[in-house]
Amino acid sequence: MRDEVTPAVSAAPQTIEGWYALHDMRRIDWRAWKRLDEAERRAALQEAAGFLARCERAADAPEGGSAFYAVAGHKADLMFLHLRPSLDHLVQVELAFHQTRLADFTERVSSYTSVIELSRYNPEEPGEAPPPEREAALVRRLKPAIPAVRYACFYPMSKKRGEIDNWYTLPMEKRRELMYSHGMIGRGYKGQVTQMVTGSVGLDDWEWGVTLFADDPLPFKKLVYEMRFDEASAKYGLFGPFWVGVRLSPAGIEEYMAGRLPGREPTATA
Amino acid sequence: MRDEVTPAVSAAPQTIEGWYALHDMRRIDWRAWKRLDEAERRAALQEAAGFLARCERAADAPEGGSAFYAVAGHKADLMFLHLRPSLDHLVQVELAFHQTRLADFTERVSSYTSVIELSRYNPEEPGEAPPPEREAALVRRLKPAIPAVRYACFYPMSKKRGEIDNWYTLPMEKRRELMYSHGMIGRGYKGQVTQMVTGSVGLDDWEWGVTLFADDPLPFKKLVYEMRFDEASAKYGLFGPFWVGVRLSPAGIEEYMAGRLPGREPTATA
Amino acid sequence: MRDEVTPAVSAAPQTIEGWYALHDMRRIDWRAWKRLDEAERRAALQEAAGFLARCERAADAPEGGSAFYAVAGHKADLMFLHLRPSLDHLVQVELAFHQTRLADFTERVSSYTSVIELSRYNPEEPGEAPPPEREAALVRRLKPAIPAVRYACFYPMSKKRGEIDNWYTLPMEKRRELMYSHGMIGRGYKGQVTQMVTGSVGLDDWEWGVTLFADDPLPFKKLVYEMRFDEASAKYGLFGPFWVGVRLSPAGIEEYMAGRLPGREPTATA
Amino acid sequence: MRDEVTPAVSAAPQTIEGWYALHDMRRIDWRAWKRLDEAERRAALQEAAGFLARCERAADAPEGGSAFYAVAGHKADLMFLHLRPSLDHLVQVELAFHQTRLADFTERVSSYTSVIELSRYNPEEPGEAPPPEREAALVRRLKPAIPAVRYACFYPMSKKRGEIDNWYTLPMEKRRELMYSHGMIGRGYKGQVTQMVTGSVGLDDWEWGVTLFADDPLPFKKLVYEMRFDEASAKYGLFGPFWVGVRLSPAGIEEYMAGRLPGREPTATA
Amino acid sequence: MRDEVTPAVSAAPQTIEGWYALHDMRRIDWRAWKRLDEAERRAALQEAAGFLARCERAADAPEGGSAFYAVAGHKADLMFLHLRPSLDHLVQVELAFHQTRLADFTERVSSYTSVIELSRYNPEEPGEAPPPEREAALVRRLKPAIPAVRYACFYPMSKKRGEIDNWYTLPMEKRRELMYSHGMIGRGYKGQVTQMVTGSVGLDDWEWGVTLFADDPLPFKKLVYEMRFDEASAKYGLFGPFWVGVRLSPAGIEEYMAGRLPGREPTATA
Repeated sequence: MRDEVTPAVSAAPQTIEGWYALHDMRRIDWRAWKRLDEAERRAALQEAAGFLARCERAADAPEGGSAFYAVAGHKADLMFLHLRPSLDHLVQVELAFHQTRLADFTERVSSYTSVIELSRYNPEEPGEAPPPEREAALVRRLKPAIPAVRYACFYPMSKKRGEIDNWYTLPMEKRRELMYSHGMIGRGYKGQVTQMVTGSVGLDDWEWGVTLFADDPLPFKKLVYEMRFDEASAKYGLFGPFWVGVRLSPAGIEEYMAGRLPGREPTATA
Repeated sequence: MRDEVTPAVSAAPQTIEGWYALHDMRRIDWRAWKRLDEAERRAALQEAAGFLARCERAADAPEGGSAFYAVAGHKADLMFLHLRPSLDHLVQVELAFHQTRLADFTERVSSYTSVIELSRYNPEEPGEAPPPEREAALVRRLKPAIPAVRYACFYPMSKKRGEIDNWYTLPMEKRRELMYSHGMIGRGYKGQVTQMVTGSVGLDDWEWGVTLFADDPLPFKKLVYEMRFDEASAKYGLFGPFWVGVRLSPAGIEEYMAGRLPGREPTATA
Repeated sequence: MRDEVTPAVSAAPQTIEGWYALHDMRRIDWRAWKRLDEAERRAALQEAAGFLARCERAADAPEGGSAFYAVAGHKADLMFLHLRPSLDHLVQVELAFHQTRLADFTERVSSYTSVIELSRYNPEEPGEAPPPEREAALVRRLKPAIPAVRYACFYPMSKKRGEIDNWYTLPMEKRRELMYSHGMIGRGYKGQVTQMVTGSVGLDDWEWGVTLFADDPLPFKKLVYEMRFDEASAKYGLFGPFWVGVRLSPAGIEEYMAGRLPGREPTATA
Repeated sequence: MRDEVTPAVSAAPQTIEGWYALHDMRRIDWRAWKRLDEAERRAALQEAAGFLARCERAADAPEGGSAFYAVAGHKADLMFLHLRPSLDHLVQVELAFHQTRLADFTERVSSYTSVIELSRYNPEEPGEAPPPEREAALVRRLKPAIPAVRYACFYPMSKKRGEIDNWYTLPMEKRRELMYSHGMIGRGYKGQVTQMVTGSVGLDDWEWGVTLFADDPLPFKKLVYEMRFDEASAKYGLFGPFWVGVRLSPAGIEEYMAGRLPGREPTATA
Repeated sequence: MRDEVTPAVSAAPQTIEGWYALHDMRRIDWRAWKRLDEAERRAALQEAAGFLARCERAADAPEGGSAFYAVAGHKADLMFLHLRPSLDHLVQVELAFHQTRLADFTERVSSYTSVIELSRYNPEEPGEAPPPEREAALVRRLKPAIPAVRYACFYPMSKKRGEIDNWYTLPMEKRRELMYSHGMIGRGYKGQVTQMVTGSVGLDDWEWGVTLFADDPLPFKKLVYEMRFDEASAKYGLFGPFWVGVRLSPAGIEEYMAGRLPGREPTATA
């Protein structure tokens, strides 16, 4: 089969890019934090809540948005998700956080740099100019509002380039079929799970980032497990680490740093 | 064989989920701990014993349970196992532990986030509504009491997606057979080893967590070794690190932190 | 096919080497930095800006150049790129940086040691002595000015030596074809992306380093993604981590260390 | 071949287990150690020598033994080997060491938890009850005296479960043949090298630990290299890190911590 | 092919061993070093220069030698190479360095323990007793003077045991041919590059260490790249990390620690 592959057939799909995305995972140095006196803690949290509120509405850029999550397990305590129009804005927002007092009590354990990506495999997205209502839908996907739901799941992934199963030598038509059937599974979770795909080839260590949003974390498991049996994942998916978190509002950081996970109401602000 | 695979055949099995589970592995900073004066140590241990006792009876949630283990070797000193009805409760219990004084003397070396999972491969669990006594048995498996035995073994695992041996492209019928014969081995250890399977696809880095409980650690070795020759493991099992520990009662933490592993009697509290 | 391979056929291509290259990635210890008083910070930054300015014009060597980048994400904050005529000069420039005060606030998280390499696969580069204008062009590639553009992307890579797909047992002719078609993709980005290939077999852990320069980071993604479908990458490319950064002028380090990414104008100095 | 495999054929061999084993690797924090004043060092070393002497004779348990090695290279400075009748004893001896002052100057870099294992592949060990002299020999292997020789080598290993070469789907008869011929190589080193195999399936991250003892380290290399060409290793052996060390007597720790490796005489105490 | 393999055919080649070798890689803690006052630095450097001078002439052993290299990049600052007649001497020299003040400002980042090895694959080295002039040549290879050249390159390697390409199941004759043609490439660099092969099966994590010495680092790249196309490397070579360094004389450490790489003359002392 490899001999049949021609450059025209195994060409890259067209992609359209939107906002840049930074997923920034931090572990808290609780021991140092608790050594601060009450006044210092209060000052640091006021500053942090203000910073996060400005991030949330992307006050540092012409457009964009941010959200914050309390992550389960040792791989991180906090995950910051920043969407911004340029790589420069991502570098700037990360840099600005380092200037806050709260940042001094965090350790950078992981991060992911990518850009929102739409792939033109999908037959319902032909290359021709879309009518205005489709144009608007496209913009909503390239510059999305972060869903106002309580849970997020993030994982990076790549497509396998094995010696037998090699995504990148499959004919375009085969890849289109696989992506279509893959997308169909996602559609079965419509209303339950919102998915944001970001491309990171040339930007970070895996090829894509997948961010899922839902009001219950169980559909993350159901969706990813169902997809794993789909040929696109079963034979070609390589998966990095998974982070799952509970959304915090900017003000919620104060309660969190005092050792209490804020309840459902105050975080559903978006 | 891969060509024969159809979406209907290689579909995901049905799963039913119960409580969420956090396995939280910690290494103790003995040097720092020993620098505390006697009064500080006593205060920290009283607080910790109270905290662990409340965890054990899930005082922080409507239902659930926790158990604590002294782990052999450098990979961890303590393993906390928390079962709770929601991901939020897991984040909360982890966060609450960080507020204790004892936590300042622990380093987070690993953890695992998952949810208790029953798989519908098993023929004796048809999709139809179970009679009341089976319903009760099902609930006991989804919301289990942590076995009141002295040893636990935890390891994460995934199913291989190799270029020849790929679990996720096997027909459902084949997977059912393999899981059935796999389960038969486990049954041979009934009365010796209790197994709790938690699913973590979409939640953590491997696909499942396996927690074994027994009153002697040797059957952990016997069981896992026997299973390794079973086709489901031999060809399709990928195994992460293993942690083995000896149960500590909440009060037992005091003796442990003084350098003595409590004996068999006081820990068999459940 | 492996039996047909003869030493003459699978011989190494001729290579010509130019300047040595050090990519030096550093994470900033912001907590310690912010503890410095204003005067100490100012002194450290003046010294650093002077050091970087001397690096940029390779004042420490007969020829060469350096550039500095603010990197997105946790993998590094700063990437220093030094081109020098010898390995000794690279060791010296790294050593000199360690003597600066700013270096005390950086952690060495990664680096890459390599040498600019031109490969003689390309038919338009025959082994015969080139005419003077080609000689000049060759020198410009072996001793390049670092492009005066805002973004850089660096990643190391190797060619796969799998049990089926093994670059190093392919006949020379096949490798020439693959490299030619690979190069054609790069040419499609002429004017958008400048590429510098450095060889590191025998010098560092991967076989090559690829440094891309552009005035917009999106073409990094487009180029690397398009290449991934090319047989040379699809079947034979193994890729290390990716670092993407925004150029800082020597003076720009002061603004950066104060938490602000300098704008487009002052950095386009080269 | 995989189709021929039946559960009966590829069953696990019978195993008999003896004492539990902890290999505990530590790196010394020399900088901190040298900061201690002379009196503190002397007190710490007296305590340590006493502790190690009690370990050596297993004063903390009804039976067992321990030995200590000065390891070459950065992977560890000291390797403690503890053999004890139960997992609880291993946890206890590790816990007790942490209470010593010397432990404060060590970093735990690795460890291995396993149990002495005899495999019933060997035809000269039939399942029937052994005569008394064989019974005694069996006990000596399950509860061995640590050889009174100067060098030890430890490495963990597993059997490969590849997509072609899969130890766990080989018929029992084939595995018996391979293990027999493997054992024959070991016998060629009788009198030179003593081998202790410990099983760790279900207890630690590899499947077995191999500890070799000899009065010259060169036979470690000769033996392991010769075995590597044996089919059991060549096709099915996966090897972890190797640690090689020189035996220290309990009293020898004092000389070692003063920067001198004790000579041959005082360590051959067993 | 695997079925044709017989124990006699795939036996290990004979090996002859010489001196033991320790490659000891260290990173300098420059921040701490610069905090020392001038007098302390001078004392530490005098002590270090004396220590290294004694190492160089193996004053700690009946015979042997040492050399020191300033390494490029973050993987190490210094590489110490010690050749000694026994493993005990290696442990002792490492232990002695830890007692120096300079050692307190170094972090152990890697090391390699091995023994000089000559393999009897080569037809010009028959098993029969060599004439006196060959005996002398053999001794010079088993107990070599470290070449008095400016650069060294070190990397560990193993032979692949893949499911198709498995070095250890090749017939002896095939391995002899491959090693012969491999050696021919090395010979093409005679006068440019000196190679020292050390065996580490059973002693450290890879199977061999390769140390190259040259008066220009470029031939390291040329040689290793040319060899990569040779079947022995192309199909069977697995390579670890590479370290490349510039030789420092014992006295040169003073200049180096002051931030200046000593020039060519003073280091060519051997």
